[in-house]
Amino acid sequence: MSDKRQGTNSGQRASRRDFLKAGIGLGGAVAAGKAFAAEADPAITEVQDWNRYLGAGTDATPYGMPSEHEAEVVRRNVRWLTASTESSVNFTPLHALDGIITPNGLCFERHHAGVAEVDPAQHRLMINGLVERPLVFTVDDLKRFPRENRIYFLECAANSGMEWRGAQLNGCQFTHGMVHCVQYTGVPLKRILDEAGLKTSAKWIMPEGADAAGMNRSVPLEKALDDCLVAFKMNGEALRPEQGYPLRLVVPGWEGNMWVKWLRRIEVGDMPWHTREETSKYTDLMDDGRSRRFTWVMDAKSVITSPSPQAPMIHKGHNVLTGVAWSGRGMIQKVDITLDGGKNWQPARIDGLSLPRALHRFYYEFTWNGEPLLMQSRAVDSSGYVQPTKDELRAVRGLNSIYHNNGIQTWHVTNSGEVENVEIS
Amino acid sequence: MSDKRQGTNSGQRASRRDFLKAGIGLGGAVAAGKAFAAEADPAITEVQDWNRYLGAGTDATPYGMPSEHEAEVVRRNVRWLTASTESSVNFTPLHALDGIITPNGLCFERHHAGVAEVDPAQHRLMINGLVERPLVFTVDDLKRFPRENRIYFLECAANSGMEWRGAQLNGCQFTHGMVHCVQYTGVPLKRILDEAGLKTSAKWIMPEGADAAGMNRSVPLEKALDDCLVAFKMNGEALRPEQGYPLRLVVPGWEGNMWVKWLRRIEVGDMPWHTREETSKYTDLMDDGRSRRFTWVMDAKSVITSPSPQAPMIHKGHNVLTGVAWSGRGMIQKVDITLDGGKNWQPARIDGLSLPRALHRFYYEFTWNGEPLLMQSRAVDSSGYVQPTKDELRAVRGLNSIYHNNGIQTWHVTNSGEVENVEIS
Repeated sequence: MSDKRQGTNSGQRASRRDFLKAGIGLGGAVAAGKAFAAEADPAITEVQDWNRYLGAGTDATPYGMPSEHEAEVVRRNVRWLTASTESSVNFTPLHALDGIITPNGLCFERHHAGVAEVDPAQHRLMINGLVERPLVFTVDDLKRFPRENRIYFLECAANSGMEWRGAQLNGCQFTHGMVHCVQYTGVPLKRILDEAGLKTSAKWIMPEGADAAGMNRSVPLEKALDDCLVAFKMNGEALRPEQGYPLRLVVPGWEGNMWVKWLRRIEVGDMPWHTREETSKYTDLMDDGRSRRFTWVMDAKSVITSPSPQAPMIHKGHNVLTGVAWSGRGMIQKVDITLDGGKNWQPARIDGLSLPRALHRFYYEFTWNGEPLLMQSRAVDSSGYVQPTKDELRAVRGLNSIYHNNGIQTWHVTNSGEVENVEIS
Repeated sequence: MSDKRQGTNSGQRASRRDFLKAGIGLGGAVAAGKAFAAEADPAITEVQDWNRYLGAGTDATPYGMPSEHEAEVVRRNVRWLTASTESSVNFTPLHALDGIITPNGLCFERHHAGVAEVDPAQHRLMINGLVERPLVFTVDDLKRFPRENRIYFLECAANSGMEWRGAQLNGCQFTHGMVHCVQYTGVPLKRILDEAGLKTSAKWIMPEGADAAGMNRSVPLEKALDDCLVAFKMNGEALRPEQGYPLRLVVPGWEGNMWVKWLRRIEVGDMPWHTREETSKYTDLMDDGRSRRFTWVMDAKSVITSPSPQAPMIHKGHNVLTGVAWSGRGMIQKVDITLDGGKNWQPARIDGLSLPRALHRFYYEFTWNGEPLLMQSRAVDSSGYVQPTKDELRAVRGLNSIYHNNGIQTWHVTNSGEVENVEIS
């Protein structure tokens, strides 16, 4: 009766036997819980207020919010990183999350001209260019097309971008927090383009946003017709304003800036537009001064989210290490863990759903004796691609880029349990 | 490259060809979108403020919230239904949602003594009774056990309970909104019970909450050891206060009151406790005055969420009907739709993930000519069980119960597009 369908399809699966092997069987019980009849624990012997008095009623929170005890689990920006808060980024608190779904209120936000507050009644999606019938849709019109529901990660091309020249930001939220993963509901873009009727010369599309930055990118038609969605919902409810309310393009596995928010127009053409955002921005500057362009796919990547600088180790003995892995090319096949800076590797356990172009959650159970550790995770995706070291990336790409850094992250655990962002070579 | 793994495994899958057959091909384009060169649309020709000025920056919403244009999409209670707001229910706005994930802020809440605001540092989970080693765990202790991630629906036994005696509440939010579906992260209960060591006489457990109601229920050990979780996260972040922060029991497929919130103690015994909540409450009173007890599993059920009374029809021509289906016994195998009160049935398309004991999302595309409709959905689960009519349920169970009403719901669409809760026989 247990849910094999929801289980992992890869990696080691911890069994009771592994658990015992790891030394936390009977002895571990006392390490994990506390046997009775030690000294009295007032948290048990005293009646707490919440056990004594009525709590808040159903009028209190028509739209619910987290506990006040979770007030530190919020998106955060890094002031020196960007010139303004409007053209800026607010990072996902990866260190405090689990599973593969990111709650909407904590999905990182990146925008070039602040959050457009669009009135959906005044919003339109126009399809023009190399089509038989240029069309304009209201948001309601789009809800008359067949819909699909898909869970995808979205990663900014600049995620981990500050780490090209060395370990810099001391927190997984800041080094890796430009990624989130939600369930989208939307209309396949192919359906909409079919309604307009593509001319035979059509080869590219250019989605454009309704914000003050008028964000736009060239997307090859093959991708547009394959798996792109025009989404209006995330995790069941309307898109959040900072995620493009009321409409955003979903471009599975590809860099986040192409997932145009506040989507108001899609032009169809026969060649790329070479917009600002794909010439001076979102290109990867190489050592020799030339740029890699149209580097759309996000390569396989992983990071240990806890322990990490904002989630230090607090117990000796048995511990659970966890993190996320993802690949723009498909699923994650396995994640390996080292605690000694790469000398020894062990497979992590991937738990829960394994879906293409979605976050995967991994765990690794281990015993800590209080000695310093050098922790790394390394992902392999379903195409066989192995996540590289930062030095391997630098050998090919130099130090000038800020984009597409999917190198292996190292966390140094000190003997006091604190965790630091470091590099080893 | 498209995501077969995330697709449906049952029901009809609408193809472009179906779409054309339904009469919304080229002609439908003009019905769905609007061809250019009709009169000018100021929503396109005028530059909107959000296109002209910078929006809010990253300091604005450390924890994000929905657009102000979605202010009506909230949980709602029904004042006359309960004596107080503390012992009450706040319903999920199903009519406005899509996909299978319910966002945390909109998950229905039902409590008997209001929302306990528990300090996690002062919270403990005690395991006592027929165990070798009674144990006490802090919340941190539990995070040292191996974790699992699972997506499950949770339905209150009283969902649709007001409809036993006839159509009563005019809104899908109120007739069916005591259900939600999220991804839980937690520890298998079996792991925790194994640490305490079950005595051979152990047959039942009694989870107990830390709220002022001290909610408790008897759960057979077989279920406890099969797939129950002690959860601390929902949709990636900490449980919400109204969902049991910091710990709740997850009892997949079984009625919601057994998913004890603010979980503070699990007693192990050799027979059920016959607590208040399983004798005077949460039993199904039959016509002859006897009660069905321990009716734990939630049988297969479905409902059309849009159109519905709070989501009227606004277009003639092509329309998308959508809804949710679920079963405590496994997966949903198919959902059939009738628009004429049961004379003709057509298969709906189940889209997205099909997971055991999780919500399933279905769609049915159809053309509306403006005549009145009598819409129903009927689910069949993976055990072969067919969702019954309300009259079939009443023939067996009478009219005295308020629990376990999984009968087929009828919505009457008037020629003006309004939708009413009705019954037909």
